[in-house]
Amino acid sequence: MSYLLAINCGSSSIKGKLFRIPKSKSDPLEFQSALEVVNIGSKDDKVKIKITWEEGKGDNLTEEGKNGDDVDYESLIPFLLDHLTSSGNLQKEDIKYVTHRIVHGGIHTKGITVTKEHEEALEEMDKLSEFAPLHNHHAVVAVRSCLDALPHHTSLMVFDTLFHASLPEEVYTYALPPPDRELAMPLRKYGFHGLSYASIVQSMAEKLGKKVEDVNIVVAHLGSGASACCIKGGQSIDTTMGLTPLEGLIGGTRSGTIDPTAIFHLTANPAEGVDFKDYTVSKAEILLNKKSGLSALAGTTNFGTIISRLSPSNCSKEEHEKAVLAYNVYMDRLLNYISSYLFKLISTTAIEKIDGLVFSGGIGEKGSKLREDVLEKLKWLGAEVDKQKNDGKHTGKVTEITTGPSKLRGWVVETDEEGWSAKLARDEFDF
Amino acid sequence: MSYLLAINCGSSSIKGKLFRIPKSKSDPLEFQSALEVVNIGSKDDKVKIKITWEEGKGDNLTEEGKNGDDVDYESLIPFLLDHLTSSGNLQKEDIKYVTHRIVHGGIHTKGITVTKEHEEALEEMDKLSEFAPLHNHHAVVAVRSCLDALPHHTSLMVFDTLFHASLPEEVYTYALPPPDRELAMPLRKYGFHGLSYASIVQSMAEKLGKKVEDVNIVVAHLGSGASACCIKGGQSIDTTMGLTPLEGLIGGTRSGTIDPTAIFHLTANPAEGVDFKDYTVSKAEILLNKKSGLSALAGTTNFGTIISRLSPSNCSKEEHEKAVLAYNVYMDRLLNYISSYLFKLISTTAIEKIDGLVFSGGIGEKGSKLREDVLEKLKWLGAEVDKQKNDGKHTGKVTEITTGPSKLRGWVVETDEEGWSAKLARDEFDF
Repeated sequence: MSYLLAINCGSSSIKGKLFRIPKSKSDPLEFQSALEVVNIGSKDDKVKIKITWEEGKGDNLTEEGKNGDDVDYESLIPFLLDHLTSSGNLQKEDIKYVTHRIVHGGIHTKGITVTKEHEEALEEMDKLSEFAPLHNHHAVVAVRSCLDALPHHTSLMVFDTLFHASLPEEVYTYALPPPDRELAMPLRKYGFHGLSYASIVQSMAEKLGKKVEDVNIVVAHLGSGASACCIKGGQSIDTTMGLTPLEGLIGGTRSGTIDPTAIFHLTANPAEGVDFKDYTVSKAEILLNKKSGLSALAGTTNFGTIISRLSPSNCSKEEHEKAVLAYNVYMDRLLNYISSYLFKLISTTAIEKIDGLVFSGGIGEKGSKLREDVLEKLKWLGAEVDKQKNDGKHTGKVTEITTGPSKLRGWVVETDEEGWSAKLARDEFDF
Repeated sequence: MSYLLAINCGSSSIKGKLFRIPKSKSDPLEFQSALEVVNIGSKDDKVKIKITWEEGKGDNLTEEGKNGDDVDYESLIPFLLDHLTSSGNLQKEDIKYVTHRIVHGGIHTKGITVTKEHEEALEEMDKLSEFAPLHNHHAVVAVRSCLDALPHHTSLMVFDTLFHASLPEEVYTYALPPPDRELAMPLRKYGFHGLSYASIVQSMAEKLGKKVEDVNIVVAHLGSGASACCIKGGQSIDTTMGLTPLEGLIGGTRSGTIDPTAIFHLTANPAEGVDFKDYTVSKAEILLNKKSGLSALAGTTNFGTIISRLSPSNCSKEEHEKAVLAYNVYMDRLLNYISSYLFKLISTTAIEKIDGLVFSGGIGEKGSKLREDVLEKLKWLGAEVDKQKNDGKHTGKVTEITTGPSKLRGWVVETDEEGWSAKLARDEFDF
């Protein structure tokens, strides 16, 4: 039996899915178990590890580990691999393929393969981290850990930038002069969350009974990192994130788009190098990626908490006022991008050909008030929320949240970055 | 006889209008002459000075002076004042009021008065230059020159930020943590080109026979600096420029919005102080404000040249390709903002209450192709260009460029920043 493990390292989490590879190429991958580790690096919380097997496939694990800041990716990866191979029905050598979601892939238009014997590709990885050390670093650590722990497998590094290879030149070009030093990749918009967008387009095509090439949607992927994407004919034609995931929408701790000189007033020495875990980044990158966003506005990154504080009775007056402002700022930026993307789609196709607006990511999936408030602003385009569906529990990958006669349709789609990574590996290695 | 002189110092130009103050407050100001100086500071061009009097009011002047970089604002202001008072019918002491357009006014919601005896306000000016030394500096020099040359007048400093005092909190708030040092003003969106927008709203109200409070328009002020504004009920509710004029649209030499960390990759030391004329600004500010934009994309800031190079026969292959990219990037960003502002207006009022899209500024007034291309994308909202009117010569302040039945109307409006500054002075000093 051969297995594929899809790993997705975030800034404080690891998610993963283990699949068994079927004998026939035309059969789907067989899902075996889901891994989740949260609170890595947290000062206040203990690491939580959860491995959930499909019935009969292995023994579940739920463990609260050490404090988050006593745990690192290097030790977690072997721990997870040991558990998978000791409490499931597989051996380490049965894991033939591992996919790693990596945030920044620069101008690469396909994944990069790496094996224990051919680690050269990892050098390429270091170059790819030039614009995104904060985001690529954990994944690189995970790739190395896997190569050490599973010496006979083949790794495929898949990138969040891949889906945006279709961006038109006028969209990805910044009006900047040439840099005063050599860079590994051009300074341009790359876009992120691509594995998520690709999986959503696939799910929407299935739901609508269409070909992927006929799907026209605007997607808001709203998690702790947030972005939106304008998808025409199944391809990304615009997206909010830019050279790095910082540009665009407000995130849990990200400023999103601001005046590009604001950082020089926020601090006197924004270019100064700061030690961050085991590497160095500029102070600006830390301030704008880790100290801004909802956290700066509301004092919390938890969107559920912000929503509950919109009622003055649930919190202090100050908390309430901050939550109201944070929600309104978040909505303002989100609507600006959604509206210009809808406009872009409508003005180049026809309103009848638009398949709707998709909400995804933790906030997108759970935030029924946010979805209702957004769709309310789209009434003039014919959107009509179905309150029951919007407020209800969403079962299955795709849930429609507008009424039958609604001219503009609204959707909640569960994204599946690991599933999409696995699909890319199947395409690449033809199994 | 008393006179008012409205001065408008740009980064390489001075514009001005001289008005005679009528005896009755209810009569309009009587326009006397227009001043224009261009190419100040230019390395390649000679300064051109032009003073044009209304018939019989004085002797016109057209002069090509020294090289641009041999001339400064300090010497030009006394020269202009000498000419006005030697070749016109007035004496220096007849000039009772001078208005100065100043770009950044921070959170001030009205103009600031300064006289030779009460120069304290100029200290306030220095604070206001904190976020905009590149933009406020020339005007401050001009205020001082006028106070020296005309010891008995009263100056009113009017700000481009004033019109945006109505921005909602959720629009002007950035999701940033507190700065690590004391700033004279909060780090937020301020917005600019406000004197222009205010004069355009006034002109549109007159043209439409409406009250200013009933005007709902989106305005694209496209000059060497470019911004757009969403105006609801006569008030600014959103605008593209931010803490400084850098944010938002692409300008002649400005990058507009980019990933906020891009500058740290463009150069290794963006926070380094650079001597610029007689003051110091950060390298980032120079690169993003003076070396980017159309200039970086097309090698020229002249929009007319870019338009002509869209035909491959007018230039080299490289020039053609660069011009096409520059035009497409410019259009992409412009359409993104225009569409989200139209959306904002429509979703909070009704499409029938929108008075249309206004083009203004040098590129907005001259760029018939650009206007047509923008309105073409608005067809689905009912916009229908009247090619003859759009391509024809625009006479008068306001020209409609869409057809009679067009549901969304398009306009070209000549802005009058000096006239609006003069109006603000009349309101302030009640004459």
